[in-house]
Amino acid sequence: MSENPTRLEAFSDGVFAIAITLLILEIKVPHAEHGLWAGLAALWPSYIAFAMSFLVILIMWVSHHELMRMIERVNYPILFANGLLLLTVTFVPFPTAVLAEHLPTAEASNAVAFYCATFAVNGAVWNLLFRTMVRSGRLRPDINAETIAGVRRAYYLGLAVYVAAAVLAFVQPWLGLLLNVSLWVLWIRLGYRSRSA
Amino acid sequence: MSENPTRLEAFSDGVFAIAITLLILEIKVPHAEHGLWAGLAALWPSYIAFAMSFLVILIMWVSHHELMRMIERVNYPILFANGLLLLTVTFVPFPTAVLAEHLPTAEASNAVAFYCATFAVNGAVWNLLFRTMVRSGRLRPDINAETIAGVRRAYYLGLAVYVAAAVLAFVQPWLGLLLNVSLWVLWIRLGYRSRSA
Amino acid sequence: MSENPTRLEAFSDGVFAIAITLLILEIKVPHAEHGLWAGLAALWPSYIAFAMSFLVILIMWVSHHELMRMIERVNYPILFANGLLLLTVTFVPFPTAVLAEHLPTAEASNAVAFYCATFAVNGAVWNLLFRTMVRSGRLRPDINAETIAGVRRAYYLGLAVYVAAAVLAFVQPWLGLLLNVSLWVLWIRLGYRSRSA
Amino acid sequence: MSENPTRLEAFSDGVFAIAITLLILEIKVPHAEHGLWAGLAALWPSYIAFAMSFLVILIMWVSHHELMRMIERVNYPILFANGLLLLTVTFVPFPTAVLAEHLPTAEASNAVAFYCATFAVNGAVWNLLFRTMVRSGRLRPDINAETIAGVRRAYYLGLAVYVAAAVLAFVQPWLGLLLNVSLWVLWIRLGYRSRSA
Repeated sequence: MSENPTRLEAFSDGVFAIAITLLILEIKVPHAEHGLWAGLAALWPSYIAFAMSFLVILIMWVSHHELMRMIERVNYPILFANGLLLLTVTFVPFPTAVLAEHLPTAEASNAVAFYCATFAVNGAVWNLLFRTMVRSGRLRPDINAETIAGVRRAYYLGLAVYVAAAVLAFVQPWLGLLLNVSLWVLWIRLGYRSRSA
Repeated sequence: MSENPTRLEAFSDGVFAIAITLLILEIKVPHAEHGLWAGLAALWPSYIAFAMSFLVILIMWVSHHELMRMIERVNYPILFANGLLLLTVTFVPFPTAVLAEHLPTAEASNAVAFYCATFAVNGAVWNLLFRTMVRSGRLRPDINAETIAGVRRAYYLGLAVYVAAAVLAFVQPWLGLLLNVSLWVLWIRLGYRSRSA
Repeated sequence: MSENPTRLEAFSDGVFAIAITLLILEIKVPHAEHGLWAGLAALWPSYIAFAMSFLVILIMWVSHHELMRMIERVNYPILFANGLLLLTVTFVPFPTAVLAEHLPTAEASNAVAFYCATFAVNGAVWNLLFRTMVRSGRLRPDINAETIAGVRRAYYLGLAVYVAAAVLAFVQPWLGLLLNVSLWVLWIRLGYRSRSA
Repeated sequence: MSENPTRLEAFSDGVFAIAITLLILEIKVPHAEHGLWAGLAALWPSYIAFAMSFLVILIMWVSHHELMRMIERVNYPILFANGLLLLTVTFVPFPTAVLAEHLPTAEASNAVAFYCATFAVNGAVWNLLFRTMVRSGRLRPDINAETIAGVRRAYYLGLAVYVAAAVLAFVQPWLGLLLNVSLWVLWIRLGYRSRSA
């Protein structure tokens, strides 16, 4: 597997595409005892959880490409660090379903905390993957120390915000979710800016 | 992500292929209290919903390629407008299942209206994506104002028909569905004609 | 879409790969009232249905490539005939699940007949797709009348065998299934021979 | 299908990516009678089964590429031996779900034995596929007898360990699982070493 990252990207893209599409399976057809519209409206936590997880997987897919473009060749450590990342990506439908089911209940704080905690783990694995890439000595020659420091900052920020959101969820679950969404919007904006620079 | 649309297309193709294949999961094995054939026959709303949603996702897949072929390079706004489109595509199995379950009930009008309404949202996102593409200044040089106007007309037509079908569903659910299918047949015919021109 | 069939093949491959992998979802974890081994053994109809449908989708995937290699360019009629074929492929998990659930019951004949009947429809669509390809005038120049006649014979044979198997299932369900499997083995053998020729 | 293995790899990659992502569907949202955290904690067998099967499919995906890189052209026997391998890969979510449900019960030994037995079958099919490749005379010219013997040893080792783990599971289920994991870690280490050599 000492090769360029094309194949690794194709496999990862497949996993991202499948994980993002499986999210819909968590939204179950409502029973219409009080009318179909009431049943559909009662699914609002599912729609929120679906939209949030869709957005974050989409952002991760974009980030993954930008990361893979930084390396020239893949080695075994990168391969398995990337595998660990994909494990946390395929896991996303589960906390999404937990969030959807428990958001309107007394367990809302716990459900949001669990949701944020799984992304904190995901954030830690992004850090691990990037660290593995840097250590491998396979970064493209034009990737300088500043770029590396910038990626690291973005990843540490993500990790810190997810942990903070998990804690904040115990105070007020919606604030935890809001903090997540703010992070994602910030990342998209940073991406916009770095592109147009 | 300031790159040609190949990778974006591959990811989108993956999502289209998965969404179109997941549709079958909504058809559950019938219990055969009154015989297997009676059980299979009673699933007619599932077959109709499956075939309709399969057809529309297939048409969207074809349209998506034709749209992507209009641009030379992808930027962040296009990437996220396309992401929003994929969100509405992965959503399709849900209104499909709602339609299948409620078509033979007193909720038929509501189920058809919901089904059409989700495609109206989808139609609005196609508009948004195309608008984003035009604004980005990344259209291929040979795409002239006439072609742009033609695409816009086709998309506004789609949006208008879906809204009309959603409204019509309250008068008569089958008319709503028929209007949808008419639109899809028209689109295929327009595609045929523009190809052979 | 007046283009070479690469993209159409990639999309079709995705649908084949997803449909073949979704088959496993029909095998549900057994409850172990009489011990786990008894529970696992009782799932034999699921294993048979899974293996049969896996084999036939694999054969169809191989056939599809050989068919697509016969054309130089894709047009709209081929695109939609191929879409209809994919519809019958994504449908396969449903008759598979029906077969698995009803094979050990009094409905075995009906379940086998339904299973075979869906492949008869699939066989008819293969005929339609090939007919569309021939009519389109887009076959590769080296495809001669003899090759065309050979493909047609193979497809008519498939259609005839599936219909016969569906009828035979009412006499004896296992004979119907055996006839299916014989057809598939024959196709593989024909493929072997034509390759080594 | 007398062609280079690119297309076969792409199809196989699709199946690997889908199978690895479907694993998450086996983890069901817990009911929170005793609190959500207790419900989430009670799912520990699901997390273990998920992580183990994810790891082994990831290793198989890497191995598959290394195997495919050994051949220059694909023929029918290789195609169908590979198909049989994919059948055992798509099967993985089922023993994974069986393991997850029965690990904390009195059926733990049987569940682990079944889990290991399915990988023993998978191991036998890897042997069959490699044997088919060697017999086909289509290996790359630079693959020498030593390399072939090395691959064979690794595959026989895998088969032997899986059988041993299945037997050991009756003594102590956790020892069976531990033996599996040891094999996987060994394989990864061998891969590392052969890469860096």
